[in-house]
Amino acid sequence: MENKKNPTLYDVAQKANVSITTVSNVLNNKNEASQKTIDRVNEAIRQLGYSRNESARTLKVGTSKLVGLIVPDNNPFFTQILTGIHEECQNHDWQVVVATSEESEKRQNEVIEMLSARQVSGIILASVTSKLYVPEKLQKVPIVLIDREVENANLPVVKANNVEGSYKATETLIQNGHRRIGIILASPGISTTLQRKEGYIQALKRYGIEVDEKLMFYGGDYTGTKTQINGGYQAVMKMIQLPEPPTAIFATNHLLMIGAVKALKEANLKIPDEISFIGFDDHPWQEITDPPFSIISQPAVEMGRQAIQALQKFKEKNIVTTTVLQLELITRNSYRSIT
Amino acid sequence: MENKKNPTLYDVAQKANVSITTVSNVLNNKNEASQKTIDRVNEAIRQLGYSRNESARTLKVGTSKLVGLIVPDNNPFFTQILTGIHEECQNHDWQVVVATSEESEKRQNEVIEMLSARQVSGIILASVTSKLYVPEKLQKVPIVLIDREVENANLPVVKANNVEGSYKATETLIQNGHRRIGIILASPGISTTLQRKEGYIQALKRYGIEVDEKLMFYGGDYTGTKTQINGGYQAVMKMIQLPEPPTAIFATNHLLMIGAVKALKEANLKIPDEISFIGFDDHPWQEITDPPFSIISQPAVEMGRQAIQALQKFKEKNIVTTTVLQLELITRNSYRSIT
Repeated sequence: MENKKNPTLYDVAQKANVSITTVSNVLNNKNEASQKTIDRVNEAIRQLGYSRNESARTLKVGTSKLVGLIVPDNNPFFTQILTGIHEECQNHDWQVVVATSEESEKRQNEVIEMLSARQVSGIILASVTSKLYVPEKLQKVPIVLIDREVENANLPVVKANNVEGSYKATETLIQNGHRRIGIILASPGISTTLQRKEGYIQALKRYGIEVDEKLMFYGGDYTGTKTQINGGYQAVMKMIQLPEPPTAIFATNHLLMIGAVKALKEANLKIPDEISFIGFDDHPWQEITDPPFSIISQPAVEMGRQAIQALQKFKEKNIVTTTVLQLELITRNSYRSIT
Repeated sequence: MENKKNPTLYDVAQKANVSITTVSNVLNNKNEASQKTIDRVNEAIRQLGYSRNESARTLKVGTSKLVGLIVPDNNPFFTQILTGIHEECQNHDWQVVVATSEESEKRQNEVIEMLSARQVSGIILASVTSKLYVPEKLQKVPIVLIDREVENANLPVVKANNVEGSYKATETLIQNGHRRIGIILASPGISTTLQRKEGYIQALKRYGIEVDEKLMFYGGDYTGTKTQINGGYQAVMKMIQLPEPPTAIFATNHLLMIGAVKALKEANLKIPDEISFIGFDDHPWQEITDPPFSIISQPAVEMGRQAIQALQKFKEKNIVTTTVLQLELITRNSYRSIT
């Protein structure tokens, strides 16, 4: 690919027979030149094919109109978050650099460093760790945490009310007569897992049901589509072999859910007749399964939008906000009453 | 958020008591200084918290180590492409700016312009139009087309063999005795739609079956999750009311497929007993539906990887490659023989 030389501001000024300052003023919409001059400058820009060099602008103003999004992987939940971020970024003329940490702390730090070196306007981070050690030299870049909290940082957070969502699912199963409820959780080290576990335990205790560790499973230490699907699968395979197997299962994300349902199908356990089931996350396919699945719905697109709004408040007014979005139980046809 | 002043190269040089050139050499791994000097410079960098300013570097070398990805929307197919791009970009230490054109030509051009102004190393584009009018001033940035071709540009392309994939699906249904096969296509203006239609027609002709326009449906002029799901739904609702309804349906992307299956469920038509069905695109949930769906599988992650490789060849050697990836029929249990 041939590299044509870019026409410069100087070339434009020369062609339009004005000063560089005048060209710059026209480009920045400062109405200090006559309409005739403005037209002449614009004509020169058009003829030369001049386009403003954003890197030069960045160097001058110190931020790049780029927002970084760091997610553990490209699973559909984070894609929905990206959609919300895109929607909101259009208002600011920002663009989004998407990077994955691949659920590795080392990689996450590398990515933060790379984005920081680019002088991004800010970073939206779904952290892989429950503690965040950002080297001091990187703390110049404003970070907003999304989905997952960290313990040791005073940063804006946009998250779902996971405790309440998990409580709702568990309580609904209890109210339908279930007392042996299996739960499948994601990686144990992240806040969302801890909170979903907490909501489950709170509901059991509230209804005087003993918390049985044997009914609590983790999908694995890492994310990644296959790992988590397999984690859900293995959890069910172990659960159904217990001396007192559960009558209901709650899978706390959509990948764990896919694996769990796969195992139930293989084991020939019919949902909801032989086992009740509640899943997590919203996906269109959940309506065409047989039965259609009841799920805890996450407002992922809205989380993305809110994260950009939180970033703006943080940057402009140094306000650290915590935004908690409600989770909703959508009841379709995957659990039944056994009372 | 407070904006601390960044330490400069000059600050580092002063602290290490060396020249700016020496600091620059150390930063660029030119081994012209003694180990003692190198250590002193690195110590000064550490103490000051100096981090290299990528915007300044960009200005100097003219590219930004950023790759742009422009997709019509954030649907899971494009997310899989992004995963492949991420994997390959790690080899080049590139990062990815993801932008959506929202299936609008105007927006697509705006995004190309914005990325171009950032001096991205290249753009991977899933074009919303079958013709691409890139203003001359933007042609400095190398573009690689992904998934969708355009007619009038001599650019590298990475695509799937859509004609063959669609032929396979149609032929399989024909070989199972079906002669009335409905097809649901996406937006009529894009190459993938035209090619999938072409494969369908070729298979019908090959087996001497009349091509009936009444069995060909479009999901709509635009993408977007809901629009396409609804498009698939409406297509089936019309199809099953035909005087001679189809005995098999082929839905040419996963969103059209979800809508189509939803309609079949509502109409109480059992797959595969009462109607045969083949879908498109790979998603883990297709294994847990009842029945599990037979689909044409797209190597989306691999397409992403290949696009970055094509970009590199284009940039470095000015080679315009066309990469065609095979599509595979994965047979599960959604069609049956009616002979």
